Amino acid sequence: MIPRNASVAIVGAGDYIGAAIARRFAREGYIVFMGRRNGEKLEPLKAEIEAAGGRAVACTLDAREEDQLTAFINQAEDAAPLEVAIFNIGANVNFPLLETTSRVFRKVWELACFAGFLTAREAARVMLPRGHGSIFFTGATASLRGGSGYAAFASAKFGNRAVAQTAARELGSKGIHVAHLIIDAGVDTEWVRQRMADAGALAGRKLMSPDSVAEAYWQLHRQPDDAWTFETEIRPSTEPW
Amino acid sequence: MIPRNASVAIVGAGDYIGAAIARRFAREGYIVFMGRRNGEKLEPLKAEIEAAGGRAVACTLDAREEDQLTAFINQAEDAAPLEVAIFNIGANVNFPLLETTSRVFRKVWELACFAGFLTAREAARVMLPRGHGSIFFTGATASLRGGSGYAAFASAKFGNRAVAQTAARELGSKGIHVAHLIIDAGVDTEWVRQRMADAGALAGRKLMSPDSVAEAYWQLHRQPDDAWTFETEIRPSTEPW
Amino acid sequence: MIPRNASVAIVGAGDYIGAAIARRFAREGYIVFMGRRNGEKLEPLKAEIEAAGGRAVACTLDAREEDQLTAFINQAEDAAPLEVAIFNIGANVNFPLLETTSRVFRKVWELACFAGFLTAREAARVMLPRGHGSIFFTGATASLRGGSGYAAFASAKFGNRAVAQTAARELGSKGIHVAHLIIDAGVDTEWVRQRMADAGALAGRKLMSPDSVAEAYWQLHRQPDDAWTFETEIRPSTEPW
Amino acid sequence: MIPRNASVAIVGAGDYIGAAIARRFAREGYIVFMGRRNGEKLEPLKAEIEAAGGRAVACTLDAREEDQLTAFINQAEDAAPLEVAIFNIGANVNFPLLETTSRVFRKVWELACFAGFLTAREAARVMLPRGHGSIFFTGATASLRGGSGYAAFASAKFGNRAVAQTAARELGSKGIHVAHLIIDAGVDTEWVRQRMADAGALAGRKLMSPDSVAEAYWQLHRQPDDAWTFETEIRPSTEPW
Repeated sequence: MIPRNASVAIVGAGDYIGAAIARRFAREGYIVFMGRRNGEKLEPLKAEIEAAGGRAVACTLDAREEDQLTAFINQAEDAAPLEVAIFNIGANVNFPLLETTSRVFRKVWELACFAGFLTAREAARVMLPRGHGSIFFTGATASLRGGSGYAAFASAKFGNRAVAQTAARELGSKGIHVAHLIIDAGVDTEWVRQRMADAGALAGRKLMSPDSVAEAYWQLHRQPDDAWTFETEIRPSTEPW
Repeated sequence: MIPRNASVAIVGAGDYIGAAIARRFAREGYIVFMGRRNGEKLEPLKAEIEAAGGRAVACTLDAREEDQLTAFINQAEDAAPLEVAIFNIGANVNFPLLETTSRVFRKVWELACFAGFLTAREAARVMLPRGHGSIFFTGATASLRGGSGYAAFASAKFGNRAVAQTAARELGSKGIHVAHLIIDAGVDTEWVRQRMADAGALAGRKLMSPDSVAEAYWQLHRQPDDAWTFETEIRPSTEPW
Repeated sequence: MIPRNASVAIVGAGDYIGAAIARRFAREGYIVFMGRRNGEKLEPLKAEIEAAGGRAVACTLDAREEDQLTAFINQAEDAAPLEVAIFNIGANVNFPLLETTSRVFRKVWELACFAGFLTAREAARVMLPRGHGSIFFTGATASLRGGSGYAAFASAKFGNRAVAQTAARELGSKGIHVAHLIIDAGVDTEWVRQRMADAGALAGRKLMSPDSVAEAYWQLHRQPDDAWTFETEIRPSTEPW
Repeated sequence: MIPRNASVAIVGAGDYIGAAIARRFAREGYIVFMGRRNGEKLEPLKAEIEAAGGRAVACTLDAREEDQLTAFINQAEDAAPLEVAIFNIGANVNFPLLETTSRVFRKVWELACFAGFLTAREAARVMLPRGHGSIFFTGATASLRGGSGYAAFASAKFGNRAVAQTAARELGSKGIHVAHLIIDAGVDTEWVRQRMADAGALAGRKLMSPDSVAEAYWQLHRQPDDAWTFETEIRPSTEPW
């Protein structure tokens, strides 16, 4: 691994997709800043990345708090120029409209949309002077479709997609590559696997591996600037859509 | 005018579209509850509607406040069964991403998305026992497209559209007609007219009259339940799109 | 009924939607030109419309034949200025891709797309000098989504929608209202009713009456030119989507 | 270069994108079958690929002719199992609706849509028994939007996209990766460069290199089958959209 003088900030470095993204970019030589609610849970991942010769920094981050988010981005930028910021916070809840409290509606929005806006703005702030960088967002089926039970979640994901679109239009010609990656399927986690098994929906169905999502992000970052993708979607071959 | 024992609640009864909707439904015999930030500004409209033989109630309403919104819907329902709720709050601001403060981002969302969620939920709450009613949302071009400078506004409007979609899918088969009306042009207000004149964009262009928007809402409400529209768009014949 | 000196041309005046549109516009005083493959099958409808005091002309029309389509539009225009043209030919077939012959693929396109192009162009030709008129297209779920088995049908419907969009953009500012109406459900015909019953999908489901579709077209035609709809969709309240 | 026992068929191997795709896959060791109207024009490209150690076969192909298309696919399959088929025929014409002849409308459809259907079906026919392969389509802005002057072109491109969607839904779970790549910008050709210069639209604008498009196809083909993209778009960083 050849170390690069460049950092990657992952907002929402969870156990699955976020962790896989961290490993993928660490493997390419980046210093990877990983933020999640309980930073201490990132220690095994940090150890794993370091054991493989990579560099990773685990941060406790409540991404809804502007000060914390700004500090997180600055911390990455101070270590090495921030080249990639990935917003990967999900907040997938399902409640009938009448049972959706204003507290839930607001919290899901703060996690899945407001924090994404802060990430885009703060990352752009440090990237724009260099005219270079990537800002990527993890989307979902609910980013495009407001299905039954998803008043809170789809509303936040739609809102986040609008932030991504706006950012892409404002920042593209200034050298910042903004993309929105729609994950149109269950990612292979214990929870999804169990839930699908319970629903009898697992037979003959592939789940998406977190590594495949991470690879998609890496490929987006590698695109030459005459052929940038703003939006793309990935799903397993077996997924009905 | 034949009075009906039914009420209409307009959340965001502003000077133009909201006022035209109030007049249109009052003309059909409904008791029209009009909510806006400064209820006293509604007095001339109330007087006009009453002079024409209609019934209207002016309410001071901060639609971001759950208690106020619930009280507003209950007040309409108490006067006569709520048959129509229309969410018509705009919050059209334009700032570059880097100049969009978290305060603005949050406020625009509270006005244009969160208040819409509260309206949908509270209206559904009183309508569902009767299995009858209409819940309509005013959308905009920014509901579908995150253009430059619209991080806050498009994000809120996208989010509101997701609420509308979810509500339509949950409530349709229970007799509630949810629709999202995209106003894809400037509505004819002094402010828009001036802004377009300044930009030299007025020649040969029609602006949309608030009455035409109100008529579109009335036609949506009249649709038979075997042919409901969820989403439609209106624009002047001369509008480029 | 007050007769108008204006004609309506219906390309694809079938037993259900087309017939309902013919009745609806005849009731408004228009001379209705009805075209279908076997014009003689239109005689009972013509008799019914005339018995109700309306005026209708039954025409044998293969809408894929440019000469016939041109003659049909001219015939309507000669009788009275053509005010409305409605393209209503369906060609709903379902074959797996591998079993879709080039003959079927071409024929479905000729019926559902090419004939729609000819209708738009020929109607525009006679309407443009007056700067006035409506050209409407019947769309379907397959206009927006290429589901399994619909290589031929969806391809033709997508193509027809592109014609409608292009026509709307070219003709709107010249006073011609072009609209695309998506019928997102089964229309209540004996065939659909039977097919849904066979699939056990009829319980608790409303079907759309042809009259409701016709009413939707009438309302589109009545829109003031500061608030035209290009695209809208209708479906029964009970329809999952 | 390590030769593979696998072939790639390019329908529409023109001077720019098609040629770049041919070079890209030849570089990966595939036998590349290149089809275009005048096969003899492919000789320099074939020579170039062979000089670089690759294998390419130049074919004269009118892709609208079913027999020729079937023979082209069979020829590739006979040489080595067909692993990738790419449909890359454009037919970008711009005429006002009233000046679009039925001859032009039909020809553009035959080139840009019907030939794509034949390609999908014939490639699927040979790939399905192996449960493996990629079928890709080159799309354009006009695949999503029917702009002024594009009745013929957008109609054909919309129709082609429907074929791609249908094929993806039918074939995905059978191991065939179908994708639709939207090229949302001018590709860097002498003609585009001149046209943009004439319009004064070249300053500060990047054009897309054919190699970047070819790379996007290669990356799509490399996707693991738990994370396939159906649709994606590419455009230069400087492109307004």
